[in-house]
Amino acid sequence: VVKIGKVPIGGRAFTVIAGPCAVETRDQTRNTAEAVKAAGAAALRAGAYKPRTSPYGFQGHGREGLAILKEVSEETGLPFVTEVMDTADVDAVAQAADAIQIGARNMQNFALLRAVGQTNKPVLLKRGLSAKIEELLLAAEYLLAAGNEQVILCERGIRTFETATRNTLDLNAVPYIKQKTHLPVLVDPSHGTGIRDLVIPMSLAAAACGADGLLVEVHEDPAVALSDGAQSLYPQGFRNLMNSLRPVVEAVGRQMA
Amino acid sequence: VVKIGKVPIGGRAFTVIAGPCAVETRDQTRNTAEAVKAAGAAALRAGAYKPRTSPYGFQGHGREGLAILKEVSEETGLPFVTEVMDTADVDAVAQAADAIQIGARNMQNFALLRAVGQTNKPVLLKRGLSAKIEELLLAAEYLLAAGNEQVILCERGIRTFETATRNTLDLNAVPYIKQKTHLPVLVDPSHGTGIRDLVIPMSLAAAACGADGLLVEVHEDPAVALSDGAQSLYPQGFRNLMNSLRPVVEAVGRQMA
Amino acid sequence: VVKIGKVPIGGRAFTVIAGPCAVETRDQTRNTAEAVKAAGAAALRAGAYKPRTSPYGFQGHGREGLAILKEVSEETGLPFVTEVMDTADVDAVAQAADAIQIGARNMQNFALLRAVGQTNKPVLLKRGLSAKIEELLLAAEYLLAAGNEQVILCERGIRTFETATRNTLDLNAVPYIKQKTHLPVLVDPSHGTGIRDLVIPMSLAAAACGADGLLVEVHEDPAVALSDGAQSLYPQGFRNLMNSLRPVVEAVGRQMA
Amino acid sequence: VVKIGKVPIGGRAFTVIAGPCAVETRDQTRNTAEAVKAAGAAALRAGAYKPRTSPYGFQGHGREGLAILKEVSEETGLPFVTEVMDTADVDAVAQAADAIQIGARNMQNFALLRAVGQTNKPVLLKRGLSAKIEELLLAAEYLLAAGNEQVILCERGIRTFETATRNTLDLNAVPYIKQKTHLPVLVDPSHGTGIRDLVIPMSLAAAACGADGLLVEVHEDPAVALSDGAQSLYPQGFRNLMNSLRPVVEAVGRQMA
Repeated sequence: VVKIGKVPIGGRAFTVIAGPCAVETRDQTRNTAEAVKAAGAAALRAGAYKPRTSPYGFQGHGREGLAILKEVSEETGLPFVTEVMDTADVDAVAQAADAIQIGARNMQNFALLRAVGQTNKPVLLKRGLSAKIEELLLAAEYLLAAGNEQVILCERGIRTFETATRNTLDLNAVPYIKQKTHLPVLVDPSHGTGIRDLVIPMSLAAAACGADGLLVEVHEDPAVALSDGAQSLYPQGFRNLMNSLRPVVEAVGRQMA
Repeated sequence: VVKIGKVPIGGRAFTVIAGPCAVETRDQTRNTAEAVKAAGAAALRAGAYKPRTSPYGFQGHGREGLAILKEVSEETGLPFVTEVMDTADVDAVAQAADAIQIGARNMQNFALLRAVGQTNKPVLLKRGLSAKIEELLLAAEYLLAAGNEQVILCERGIRTFETATRNTLDLNAVPYIKQKTHLPVLVDPSHGTGIRDLVIPMSLAAAACGADGLLVEVHEDPAVALSDGAQSLYPQGFRNLMNSLRPVVEAVGRQMA
Repeated sequence: VVKIGKVPIGGRAFTVIAGPCAVETRDQTRNTAEAVKAAGAAALRAGAYKPRTSPYGFQGHGREGLAILKEVSEETGLPFVTEVMDTADVDAVAQAADAIQIGARNMQNFALLRAVGQTNKPVLLKRGLSAKIEELLLAAEYLLAAGNEQVILCERGIRTFETATRNTLDLNAVPYIKQKTHLPVLVDPSHGTGIRDLVIPMSLAAAACGADGLLVEVHEDPAVALSDGAQSLYPQGFRNLMNSLRPVVEAVGRQMA
Repeated sequence: VVKIGKVPIGGRAFTVIAGPCAVETRDQTRNTAEAVKAAGAAALRAGAYKPRTSPYGFQGHGREGLAILKEVSEETGLPFVTEVMDTADVDAVAQAADAIQIGARNMQNFALLRAVGQTNKPVLLKRGLSAKIEELLLAAEYLLAAGNEQVILCERGIRTFETATRNTLDLNAVPYIKQKTHLPVLVDPSHGTGIRDLVIPMSLAAAACGADGLLVEVHEDPAVALSDGAQSLYPQGFRNLMNSLRPVVEAVGRQMA
């Protein structure tokens, strides 16, 4: 069991971490955080540093975004996880955040893995778009070898030939990893599908096959989101998700964190 | 809702079809059929014609296998589905079986689709190893255009770069297809994982994300199976699967068929 | 060395087989055949039976198409290869054609492999969209095991995550197969790229890495082709291809057939 | 045309950059450099910082490796390219090297792209294992947007379902990119195949389809290489490559640099 703030990941708990793709404004972050808290989320997620395919896309607010997250986290009492992309920012992120995310594109950024492995914060390591499970486990080994044992893995979809969905969510990876390691495993159904209407059914599937929780994108108004709008739940959709989840979580003998 | 014999596929029912990969002997087929029936399976599956990558692998018993299946089906009362691979065998399979399977390798065998589309038996159409969902739906369209509307789709894993599992079970396809069509969708967790220990968790995931049932390989003694032993459940494993499934099926508002 | 009519495939020869995707009309077939012959093609290709993803696409003219091909072949002196998709049509195709093609979607249609393996005509076996090289060789083994040793393999692109091109032409397969077997290997740069402007450079690449020839789509007027227009060369483009090919073929110590 | 030292990449030149996967020792680096120079290589490649899947693999000699490369480069007169993996090392690499490589795993390490984009050294940007061509071009855009216009792209194989080869060399990308941009494109047949015996044929294919040069791994004794031994040419193999290349390069109207 790894703890993000006081929130457990692993064991009998099933933990939902939710929030917007990116910190856009203080209000948007606070409103979304309050909405997900009210619906039962245990922690907050949002990006201050955003990895974007194009240099002309919104790149995130950086340190200012971290400050907003810190403030909203204190107001709502939700611990937060946020991504770091550069070894030069590791200290700043480690000071502000309750957990540090290493994103899919950086899963084999070995310099970053070593730097984050030297912090004392939990690490949420996302599987790369084309990473074999074995490579994900070896990337985690970089963190462990650097001394950080608070590692949480996250399946977020892999790149395949299928184009109907943004990625192919590889839920096989969840029970496979659970049998090979003791590390907790989250599932990100937002990136794993790329389609809002698939987020709820795939969240239930994740719970059913043994995941320890979810990382879900929620936006107060997805239609105007600066990134990932098409896969972000509305606050009402997130409430529906939480209501649908509980019976499935209980059916597999676990409890919502 | 499509019916295999008297067994419904679709609607509120969640239907489990189970049996050995191949008809090996009369005893093996009967023993496995009785075991899966006792555990709650609604229908039987087994291959008389086997598509094998190598010409030197066991190719199935053909018409003799069909006869065994027919006999075991009558003894146990379980309707059965079995694969056809050649237009020349369509009549024989259509006469014997309660449902005709078109396997993954033949999903775009258009001559076969047209021939099976002209029978009056339900068709279980498996997604090809590298078929896009769109292509699966167009393959189904061949059956519908030929006049056969009793089409059941089956997600059975796609081919990706991941080698830890035999295939990557693309559960995204289940809710995606359910939103695009009214056709029932089964999931084959045996081929979708290739690993016995993943069959139960992925079966639960399939139920949770909205599948209408399962196609599961069970063998009375997987260690000596002529094919697919590594992914076949033992009878005891199948009983465990059925016991684990019920609460999840009910948690999503459905009932075991 | 396998011979299609009198045309050698393999050895020091580099053999270009060209023609339209499908037999559309007698005139279109004859005009294209004359154009590719004038530019130096050694054999003709065209489909009478067309595998189409949708049942509503043009399905080919069947036996009438075979008759047109036979006639055009006799007029031009070009031997021809054409696809068979159903065991029921194998005899008809074997009687008319100089070589029988088994298409990518049927590479693991084992009933068809066995039936074609019992004819005495050369077989052009195309690699499946998601077939491993090993599986292509085992599919060839079905033909060899049935008694037909005149097997020609064809790399035509595999399905990957890349969407800029229709398929990913896996030229690695050419030298790999040449080292493992003695079977001749052709390359289909038309399906392998799906883009007319890439056909010439990839044809040169195929020659450079050791392929024994090409299978190229040419249409007298690609803009009105019923299928594969976007990847078909104009007659002038085909002449450019042949002119560009010769120096590369000679640079690797071979001769145009 | 981009220049690495005085060596042109692009235009009518076909440029071969060769050397060991990693700087292991001063002698190994010097011996290999002298061997590739004698055979006609125009520049040297070798890694001081090595991205390794496992934290327990050889990680490279870092700054000491850079110093060895600098010394060997001066002795042999071959300019060199070497990889940087961390923004913290960009200055050191930019000072020592004639060109900076961004490896496949870091193609979307946007912090690194921005930092390297601010140097005045040419950049060799390798395509990611699962990067679409479009994403490679957008990664290059990060460099261009940061002010560095000396960008060389490199196709080095993509990850697909095929396991016979280490990667699938996507030569389609070469003519595709040449038609979309004016940036020079190299091909790395060593990583693109992972098999020594395929390096020569795929090098010829790269030249034939329009690549501007090669990045080839050569080791004085591949059997004892600390990394990538199976895909490294022996010095004799590299001489054979250069001899085979010249006629193909000339057949497509270009000259060895």
